[in-house]
Amino acid sequence: MPTIFTRILTGEIPGEFVFRAPRWIGLCDISPSAPGHCLLVPVAEADHLHELPLETLAELGPHLARLTAAVRVATGCQALNVIINDGRAAGQEVPHVHLHVIPRWAEDGKTCGLFGGSRATATTLSAMGTQLRAAWGQP
Amino acid sequence: MPTIFTRILTGEIPGEFVFRAPRWIGLCDISPSAPGHCLLVPVAEADHLHELPLETLAELGPHLARLTAAVRVATGCQALNVIINDGRAAGQEVPHVHLHVIPRWAEDGKTCGLFGGSRATATTLSAMGTQLRAAWGQP
Repeated sequence: MPTIFTRILTGEIPGEFVFRAPRWIGLCDISPSAPGHCLLVPVAEADHLHELPLETLAELGPHLARLTAAVRVATGCQALNVIINDGRAAGQEVPHVHLHVIPRWAEDGKTCGLFGGSRATATTLSAMGTQLRAAWGQP
Repeated sequence: MPTIFTRILTGEIPGEFVFRAPRWIGLCDISPSAPGHCLLVPVAEADHLHELPLETLAELGPHLARLTAAVRVATGCQALNVIINDGRAAGQEVPHVHLHVIPRWAEDGKTCGLFGGSRATATTLSAMGTQLRAAWGQP
């Protein structure tokens, strides 16, 4: 069954497009966290970022940078957060990759509750680095 | 004055590298929100995403996807968040673009406080869409 983003893409349900390109689209979020909250969505249906085709991934950064610049201009925001919820345990609600672009102002009262760890020991960091480099495929 | 990431890159201060490529590096965050919390950092010094060179932006997506896959394998996490704090009002602490990759588990007790808007009216969405398309440079 097509995802809600694919249904918007095909015109089955309406969407407020910021742009349409062959591999990515920009949409206004229908329940914006702040005015100007947008979504960057690949045309390719994939649940997770690491499942996207390489030619789609190669256009992610350029489209994202241009979308953040447009949101800055259109909203006059002071800053913005880009967030990907990649998997249900990370808050993903639609099983189709999407990046949130959320405009921010100094006094908007929002905080991201995902930070705030304490300083890791050198031993802990080194052990984690070894595991990550192995998973990356680099010695 | 070089940023802390540039000082890590040049070897002036130590860093736990996941990978080093000509335009991007992967590092372990020294104060991880969860074990395996990594940073994806461009070699080019720029405060904001929209200021990065196009050749750097073109490699963002491929490196990010590969890093999320590596974090999944190394940590066994169920999901992950990718977060960019782009500007001080969005929580940016180092004036050098960086993407956080944070492993998540269903019962980890973390929540992102940046969502939760109410449904926008069609008129509001349409007006914002018009502003955003103008800022994007598309009719």
